[in-house]
Amino acid sequence: MVDERQETGIGVTDTSRSPHCRLRPVPLGAVRMTRGFWAERLRTNREASIPVVLERLREHGVLDNFLRLTGTKDCPRERRLATDSDLYKWIEAACFTLANRDDADLRSSVEDVLAAVLPAQEPDGYLNTSMVEENRHRRWQDFHAHEFYCAGHMFQAAVAHHRATGQGRFLDAAGRFADYLCERFGPGGREWYPGHPEIELALVELYRETREQRYLDLADCLLARNPNIDPDEVQGHAVRALYYACGMTDLFAETGRGDLRDALESHWQTMTRGKIYITGGVGSRPRGEMFGAMFELPNLNAYAETCAAAANVFWNWRLVTLAGEARFADVLERALYNSFLAGVSLDGLSFFYVNPLACTGKAQGDPWYDWARRTAHGRQEFFHVTCCPPNVLRLLAALPGHFYSTSREGVWVHLYGGSTVDWHLPGGGRFALEQTTDYPWSGQVEVRVTKAEAPFSIFLRIPGWCSSASVSVNGESSRQEPVPCSYLELKRNWQVGDVVQLDLDMAPLLMESDPRVPENRGSAAIQRGPLVYCLEAPDNPGVDLFEARLDPAQAMRCTHRSGLLGGVTVIEGAGIVPTQTEEAGSLYQPVGSRASVATRPVNLTAIPYYAWANRGPAQMTVWVRRADRA
Amino acid sequence: MVDERQETGIGVTDTSRSPHCRLRPVPLGAVRMTRGFWAERLRTNREASIPVVLERLREHGVLDNFLRLTGTKDCPRERRLATDSDLYKWIEAACFTLANRDDADLRSSVEDVLAAVLPAQEPDGYLNTSMVEENRHRRWQDFHAHEFYCAGHMFQAAVAHHRATGQGRFLDAAGRFADYLCERFGPGGREWYPGHPEIELALVELYRETREQRYLDLADCLLARNPNIDPDEVQGHAVRALYYACGMTDLFAETGRGDLRDALESHWQTMTRGKIYITGGVGSRPRGEMFGAMFELPNLNAYAETCAAAANVFWNWRLVTLAGEARFADVLERALYNSFLAGVSLDGLSFFYVNPLACTGKAQGDPWYDWARRTAHGRQEFFHVTCCPPNVLRLLAALPGHFYSTSREGVWVHLYGGSTVDWHLPGGGRFALEQTTDYPWSGQVEVRVTKAEAPFSIFLRIPGWCSSASVSVNGESSRQEPVPCSYLELKRNWQVGDVVQLDLDMAPLLMESDPRVPENRGSAAIQRGPLVYCLEAPDNPGVDLFEARLDPAQAMRCTHRSGLLGGVTVIEGAGIVPTQTEEAGSLYQPVGSRASVATRPVNLTAIPYYAWANRGPAQMTVWVRRADRA
Repeated sequence: MVDERQETGIGVTDTSRSPHCRLRPVPLGAVRMTRGFWAERLRTNREASIPVVLERLREHGVLDNFLRLTGTKDCPRERRLATDSDLYKWIEAACFTLANRDDADLRSSVEDVLAAVLPAQEPDGYLNTSMVEENRHRRWQDFHAHEFYCAGHMFQAAVAHHRATGQGRFLDAAGRFADYLCERFGPGGREWYPGHPEIELALVELYRETREQRYLDLADCLLARNPNIDPDEVQGHAVRALYYACGMTDLFAETGRGDLRDALESHWQTMTRGKIYITGGVGSRPRGEMFGAMFELPNLNAYAETCAAAANVFWNWRLVTLAGEARFADVLERALYNSFLAGVSLDGLSFFYVNPLACTGKAQGDPWYDWARRTAHGRQEFFHVTCCPPNVLRLLAALPGHFYSTSREGVWVHLYGGSTVDWHLPGGGRFALEQTTDYPWSGQVEVRVTKAEAPFSIFLRIPGWCSSASVSVNGESSRQEPVPCSYLELKRNWQVGDVVQLDLDMAPLLMESDPRVPENRGSAAIQRGPLVYCLEAPDNPGVDLFEARLDPAQAMRCTHRSGLLGGVTVIEGAGIVPTQTEEAGSLYQPVGSRASVATRPVNLTAIPYYAWANRGPAQMTVWVRRADRA
Repeated sequence: MVDERQETGIGVTDTSRSPHCRLRPVPLGAVRMTRGFWAERLRTNREASIPVVLERLREHGVLDNFLRLTGTKDCPRERRLATDSDLYKWIEAACFTLANRDDADLRSSVEDVLAAVLPAQEPDGYLNTSMVEENRHRRWQDFHAHEFYCAGHMFQAAVAHHRATGQGRFLDAAGRFADYLCERFGPGGREWYPGHPEIELALVELYRETREQRYLDLADCLLARNPNIDPDEVQGHAVRALYYACGMTDLFAETGRGDLRDALESHWQTMTRGKIYITGGVGSRPRGEMFGAMFELPNLNAYAETCAAAANVFWNWRLVTLAGEARFADVLERALYNSFLAGVSLDGLSFFYVNPLACTGKAQGDPWYDWARRTAHGRQEFFHVTCCPPNVLRLLAALPGHFYSTSREGVWVHLYGGSTVDWHLPGGGRFALEQTTDYPWSGQVEVRVTKAEAPFSIFLRIPGWCSSASVSVNGESSRQEPVPCSYLELKRNWQVGDVVQLDLDMAPLLMESDPRVPENRGSAAIQRGPLVYCLEAPDNPGVDLFEARLDPAQAMRCTHRSGLLGGVTVIEGAGIVPTQTEEAGSLYQPVGSRASVATRPVNLTAIPYYAWANRGPAQMTVWVRRADRA
């Protein structure tokens, strides 16, 4: 049996020895993104986003906050409390990128950053650049000071660095800080907990990397002490709630405790039944960046923070690895392709904090514009609280680690995109696959076996959105019927050159929501494959998209336009718009007394939601009124 | 001709000499609330709310903030910057109450408060208890410091005190502060303006009371310098926007400037066409307490601050007096009976800051509960920012001044409620009327002439909500057809004993909203007379009101229940509720694929919206799903 610990880059979450986890990770280095949708986005992440965000963190003094502590710079502390975490997330993104594909310049950037960070650590292990000098007395005084949060991001960065480089000094530094925390807050220690969860999942990963049981115990303590978690319903600040859920899931993977599993199931059920947007965005309520009540999913006023969409991916990734249940991969894919991906511009240089499902396109009167520096006029280069950009970076960098898993039975294909994987089963048999596809523009996926040392199963994910799919092996139809929202197991003594053909029906879908979501009644949203679409003004000149009504009885047409928005498939549908505004009537009138409005036919063109707001501020809506509804 | 200035209590807004105003005020002292809806509420205001709010202001140190400045108390400054204004609003409420009906205890309370306030004024006229000692250097440094705002409320209180008592010392103090401001910020002075408008309307009223032109000029300067006002659309912080609009209206009444009139019309049109709730509430957006975009009127997440509803009444009162246009009285009445009146509990002891149109009834996950100390679990005795309670007090206290106006042609009846008025026309002829009605429970109103020294017209308001009305004089039908949303003029040589009978159709109405309000599509709201209704859990046990659907084809039944909520007419309708929850389906499904849900018939009972939340936290909704819509 191969000793997996001998290899660097053991995946994004190392569940290779987690007793209550069915799926095992495939390292970032074992996956290569070849061509297509994600290969392009990862290139942009590597070549544009990662360098530019480091530059901006530097400009805004985030590195200097460390350098000043060792006397290298003489400058005041800059920016908000939690800003160390932004740099740690950048390091994590850079290390995941290196783990996937080495790059001398990026490696040297990481070393430069670490040369600033590591010397700032205090002899007892403490490290937080805002709790120094005259603020030293504030350490561990305020739940909301983000000390645990920053420490957690340091641990994640250190683990990623260790996995990418095999070097131990950052991991050792993280261990010293973690030991400091264990002594003070571990079992029997002070009954304190993080105001912003994050460290819990980081401690579990640190435990996985170091096998130091005390880190797992500390994670358990911190999770158990948090009084803000409802056992039945996911609620509160969305990022906090989902980072906490990640920590619970990680702890469950190691301990198998039933109470954790029950809470996870309740939180996931309430989220997916009434608290998630069709884009996979979560945390609908601006005030407090919170989950709303069940079915409280406003579109224009959606908050749906980019970090919350990332957290949703992080969490569902952890859930899918527990038992290989496709329902979690469906949520992951929905959040990834839509709410999360909208968080970064096509050129990788600017970011959204808030991801609404409708936009007036006017600066005045639009909440989207009013949310201060978080949105202003389109995506921003930086934010006052700049948590989102480095979260985009690190998830994209880690994405190759989410395409495949292994289990005792074989290899699992979670995501579709041009890529190769060359790895081995937990039992030791090596395998290699080559995936070729134009997904998400096409539903045709070819998986070619390029190495197969032992018989194994290939588990192909059949997405929940797909009503009809077919699978063939070497041109012969599979005996099993592909079932939406499941993994189809193809068990075989695979030979090099074997070809699996998966064909997912990509007909555009007109979606409606549970009628208990008040804002979506009488409206529909267009979805094709994993992509949710929207109407945006530049593609629909002269049409008020809040007035336009789509006719569900008319077929929609799909056209791939390689020159548009980096290459997208647009969807056109027939609809109507009023020939005059409805201003003749009052805002409120007796039922039935409103004069009907004359309409004219109109062609409505939809683009993928992730690509909106790349052509300046414009009106946009995901949910479109239906012509067959009042 | 009677010299109106010789009489105290010349109304709430003294337009008796405003050149561009058609209607003249009737003093509070000339109106007596006899019996019925408003008589009862004014009694509660006088006997419960006014004493208890003073007590709470005292407890929270608001009086001590003044007393410490003269050495009477040795204590630190308490509470927020603008809290002086809360005390001034209390004085205004007390003085309006006294102007309407003298009371020795209340008079002495006012004198006690003034004994604390007046000595705190500085020799140069400045008075603000937060800008003293170590904060003295902060004077006039920050737009948002509410210095102008507090000064404005001081002026309004002083004017009310002068009108109620005829005494000049508070008015003189206000004049000294106003002179201080004129010198610094008047024409040619520093180009500074209030971050929170209010002083503009107060300065116009101070001008009306003192005839000092410089106060009007200062109001003009402050209005003109404010850069936050869009000429075409009402937007921004709702209270600020509407206080500003009041100032513009007052300035127009004095100057007749066309630019003001155009902006007022645009603001009113955008508000009434797309930015006002059916309850008359405004400022839909919690973040920034702002007007939303057109048609952005969320129900569960409505903000609709009580102060904004009051401001809406203040503004439409000013507008209706300009030319006697009934459309403004309609908005005034809608806001008054619904969003505003919901702001105070039936016992007058607790208050809402936020007035949503739906409530889950659960503390967790409900924005209404999350809005911190502003709402928590139902109405509150006090708030961190406690602007709303004294605004409730002062508007209720001033309400008798809103029932009647005069003009050259006669007397105008704006509001219906048991009352008498004994006053004179601008030309000098005295008149007295006695109004008897069970309005808003009944649409029958009797107006008896009890004094008539000269021929004059009676202008009866025919509300816009009333599709059918009849008017008779001494049993004989009026020749004019009553037109909804107009004033019906009855010109006659009135004799003592003449009786006008007005009969407004009070059949319950099922209202729908402009389909461009996304949340209300497929829903209806019940209205009867000026009252908007809601479904609240205590009247509908076992029914999930967010699932219930009302059948518009079935007639609704009205029943007056004198024992319920202080006596209300309830409205019952037939509807359906699902026999099981709709959880079988997904949150998002292809159009047409959702299984229909089995339903059972249900009787739905609605109560007036103003009376909700008087029986503990409970589910509530104004907009009810329609059984004939998906």
